[in-house]
Amino acid sequence: MKNEAQFLELIDTHFNCDHEFVKLGRGDDCAILSGDKKYCVSSDLFLEDVHFRHTYFSAADIGYKALAVNISDIAAMGAKPVSFSMDLMAPTELDTVFWDDFFKSMAGLARQNDISLLGGDISRADKLGISITIYGVGGANGFIRRGNCVPGDILFTIGDLGLARVGFMTLEAVGSKGREAFPTAVMAHLRPKPKIMIGTLLNAAGVKGLMDVSDGLAQDLPRFLGPTLGADLTLKTEQLNGNVVAFALAMGVDPVETAILGGEDYALLGAVSPFESGKAASVPGYTPLGVVTDTPGITVNGETFTASGFDHFDK
Amino acid sequence: MKNEAQFLELIDTHFNCDHEFVKLGRGDDCAILSGDKKYCVSSDLFLEDVHFRHTYFSAADIGYKALAVNISDIAAMGAKPVSFSMDLMAPTELDTVFWDDFFKSMAGLARQNDISLLGGDISRADKLGISITIYGVGGANGFIRRGNCVPGDILFTIGDLGLARVGFMTLEAVGSKGREAFPTAVMAHLRPKPKIMIGTLLNAAGVKGLMDVSDGLAQDLPRFLGPTLGADLTLKTEQLNGNVVAFALAMGVDPVETAILGGEDYALLGAVSPFESGKAASVPGYTPLGVVTDTPGITVNGETFTASGFDHFDK
Repeated sequence: MKNEAQFLELIDTHFNCDHEFVKLGRGDDCAILSGDKKYCVSSDLFLEDVHFRHTYFSAADIGYKALAVNISDIAAMGAKPVSFSMDLMAPTELDTVFWDDFFKSMAGLARQNDISLLGGDISRADKLGISITIYGVGGANGFIRRGNCVPGDILFTIGDLGLARVGFMTLEAVGSKGREAFPTAVMAHLRPKPKIMIGTLLNAAGVKGLMDVSDGLAQDLPRFLGPTLGADLTLKTEQLNGNVVAFALAMGVDPVETAILGGEDYALLGAVSPFESGKAASVPGYTPLGVVTDTPGITVNGETFTASGFDHFDK
Repeated sequence: MKNEAQFLELIDTHFNCDHEFVKLGRGDDCAILSGDKKYCVSSDLFLEDVHFRHTYFSAADIGYKALAVNISDIAAMGAKPVSFSMDLMAPTELDTVFWDDFFKSMAGLARQNDISLLGGDISRADKLGISITIYGVGGANGFIRRGNCVPGDILFTIGDLGLARVGFMTLEAVGSKGREAFPTAVMAHLRPKPKIMIGTLLNAAGVKGLMDVSDGLAQDLPRFLGPTLGADLTLKTEQLNGNVVAFALAMGVDPVETAILGGEDYALLGAVSPFESGKAASVPGYTPLGVVTDTPGITVNGETFTASGFDHFDK
């Protein structure tokens, strides 16, 4: 692919540029978003050799995941994605077959979620990079922010803690061959499923707080709770995905610790009042994790847990 | 600079994150834009060794221009910028002094234009890169799109055609020493001035079409006119910036051709009805360029002009 016109032509064959929330699409100095609703906005980078490697990510995996990680932020607001813009850093050596696979996969995910392409920019670059900015509109109760908890609230997750991290570590260790030993984990890393429907249902169920677990529960739960609260969690090995347990046992580490340290989980972490948890509990995948406490600090199965794992000296 | 927390702290010391159009700023899974108005949106990449070089761009120049080129797209809609998000690709070898200069300069330009920082993402990368997405709200007549011309309309520009391109060629040829010979041109390349006030005035003056001349008039004018219209232009050497004339004469090329080929001008190109041109003509810098004709093709001072310059065989 040599010039912008070729890219734009290929993009036009794959993407839908019309949307009820878009008043003017690609082709002028700016696009125009309709002003009928509030928009939530999120931006994420997806960069070669930082967030993905060509050695074990196909063109279709890269196109898919670049958009999926952005959709995940919209899901974490209990919102519905509507449109996105993309700044593309494109090495000249990638050919039309690569870009066709890349756009086709991204556009498929966009279509599944009824998201249009708003616009963007293209430039040559040494390494492939994608910067996406995505827009969403609120659900039944608007946008669900992080936290907003009081002691006694029930914490829950939807999605497999630690699974994508196990996939990442497997791929880094043995490359694509890792698909055989840990297929679910590898797919969780390459093709994370954004939980838009789940987020929308949780929004309608009246959850108090919602967050995308992207740096692992150990780091993200304190961010969710804020500086004055803590949590007592219960998480048993039987609740974990089999790939996480098998990987941890193979590596001689604690499966529960592996799950909580996690990273790039794209699981949702939420809080709900114990008096209003019924609707949330009926959302597919809802897994109670514990309760909010009135002092900072996290325990897991009664043991103190820090950002680096179980604190075996604190007993 | 080693970690995201250090970056966020430095960003917070420089940028204003509050704005009447922002309901929720940085710190959650998404930011939230107020839905009271339509928004125009534009994204641009600003990449090391593609759009700038460290050899002749200071940290302050890079921070300034990364935002300025985005503001320029808002000006070209006759709109007012309100907020922006930034995805930052940050090489680990750049130190705190660099980033302090970079953010200070960018934040100064943001403050001048009353723009808040909405959010973004930071990642390590081999080369410095900035992907900015900027939001604007409409002016007196909403948003002014490209084109919308009929034969007989008056074409005009505001800003120096070719000047930034002369600055670029000078800097590429002799580096920062070029500031002495062509100071205005070099500054036009390093620190382009976005024309927000001008765009707002042109909007209120009822211009029909407006566009940012970013690839040079020769390439952008046909885009502005569309496939069915052309233009007869009059542009004399006396109207050009002295740096453009001096550079062209030094290089043994036609000054008018140099100005029209241009590139990265960040000048505004507009069209106005001849019956309603009075208000537009009173906007500072307004320079009549010619008239819209009913057949495709451009003439300059009576000679045919193509995307590559005067067509001396077409007489």
